[in-house]
Amino acid sequence: MKFTKMHGAGNDYVYVNAFTEKLPSDLGELARKMADRHFGIGGDGMILICPSERADARMRMFNLDGSEGEMCGNGVRCVGKYVYDHGIATKETVTIETGRGVLTLQLFPENGKVARVRVNMGKPIFNPIEIPTTLTGEPPKRQPVQVAGRTVEVTAISMGNPHGVVFVDEPTDEWVLSIGPKLETHPVFPRRANIEFVKVLSRTEFQMRVWERGSGETWACGTGACASAVAGMINGLFDRKVLAHLRGGDLEIEWADSGEVFMTGPAAEVFSGEWPE
Amino acid sequence: MKFTKMHGAGNDYVYVNAFTEKLPSDLGELARKMADRHFGIGGDGMILICPSERADARMRMFNLDGSEGEMCGNGVRCVGKYVYDHGIATKETVTIETGRGVLTLQLFPENGKVARVRVNMGKPIFNPIEIPTTLTGEPPKRQPVQVAGRTVEVTAISMGNPHGVVFVDEPTDEWVLSIGPKLETHPVFPRRANIEFVKVLSRTEFQMRVWERGSGETWACGTGACASAVAGMINGLFDRKVLAHLRGGDLEIEWADSGEVFMTGPAAEVFSGEWPE
Repeated sequence: MKFTKMHGAGNDYVYVNAFTEKLPSDLGELARKMADRHFGIGGDGMILICPSERADARMRMFNLDGSEGEMCGNGVRCVGKYVYDHGIATKETVTIETGRGVLTLQLFPENGKVARVRVNMGKPIFNPIEIPTTLTGEPPKRQPVQVAGRTVEVTAISMGNPHGVVFVDEPTDEWVLSIGPKLETHPVFPRRANIEFVKVLSRTEFQMRVWERGSGETWACGTGACASAVAGMINGLFDRKVLAHLRGGDLEIEWADSGEVFMTGPAAEVFSGEWPE
Repeated sequence: MKFTKMHGAGNDYVYVNAFTEKLPSDLGELARKMADRHFGIGGDGMILICPSERADARMRMFNLDGSEGEMCGNGVRCVGKYVYDHGIATKETVTIETGRGVLTLQLFPENGKVARVRVNMGKPIFNPIEIPTTLTGEPPKRQPVQVAGRTVEVTAISMGNPHGVVFVDEPTDEWVLSIGPKLETHPVFPRRANIEFVKVLSRTEFQMRVWERGSGETWACGTGACASAVAGMINGLFDRKVLAHLRGGDLEIEWADSGEVFMTGPAAEVFSGEWPE
């Protein structure tokens, strides 16, 4: 089976072209094997680029643990790049079907290859039942959550997948690696959640580390950057356009008057290879 | 540039066939880029399989940080497998030139591909000047070293590269991730050292975790397993043949009457790919 390793701001997945490659029935197991960093190809998970009846392509993403995710903001940029670079769609505006619906992507090619992508990530979801979370408010803003013997203030937002955003002085290992997994699986998030630790740098800039549901710490999370930006905006900390500094690179997030969130960031192909069945 | 990803008990490297591939001049930089787990292919480092005037092939290994290492026990098994599977040498006993000299490997093929390899790792080096270490004794046995406000007993041995072996009740994260890097760079090891944390299970079995010089924790270290086995034998803890359980798999270590250490373990090819220059 042919595959391509790609990353968006260091959030790296093994990509398989399901237009041409024959896939096994157990996709979760395939993802676990391929994404294993010591015994497999290595990555934050696996993303399939599939035919779609509603868009230029459909993205299916699987986490490190084999579970299927609804959406991945860095992943969808890479899918946009793949679709263009590999001739599946030869235009600079493409549509990708995801677990979050059909997203429109603006591609910015350089010398025939896409380097940056702007994605309409849709409107943030504030309804606690839809997020889903047991926290109250619409959205729940800086709600107290008891974790590891302390009280943490969590802002909960869905960008198609559930997020818990915590504003901190410094996104330390203690926050990300100790508190992160405890919040991910906390009862306030019945379907678990991605957890972002955000340091406010100014009204137009923040630093973020993320603990991703099912994957652990990753170098970047596009939906997490969007959720963090919106969380900062509704808490009065940010303007409507903000630059997010993640471990793997920078993402520009804009919350437009239409209510939709636009994310612009890099997409890169690292190498391609052959996975023996 | 073509490459092959292989692992020996989970100790994974990016392998490049220098018989056929054209290499850039800065090999350290190539290793750092290729071995990066988020932005590159990902691995514990890079290993080149080169022509040799003294053996069937020559192995050059580079750590994650771009530094060149003398030897890698799991790596040399994979080089043996590569050389056989790819027709560089079509015999079941091959010789590989390493920074430790020419090693003889016994290959165990199954259906035309090598699955396990027995390596003559040579004689352990006990002379403190050659190891090198400032600790005293030949070899230094359970010598007290002050680190992180406590006294740790270190047995120092070289298997071509310097090792510090610490016997512990349980090889915890605290030992490996906190004490490991401090011992690696401790003044008692002027050229730094690989640090092994060994739990004795019986006279013929032990569990081990390793902090590798220049790479951090790895899933297995062949020379480390040999050094740990010999350290246990000279401290009266093990018989002359012992099974080592590492995070990535098992290795059999035998210290023969000839004084040479033999290591037997798995070697596996994961996938091959093309690295864009």
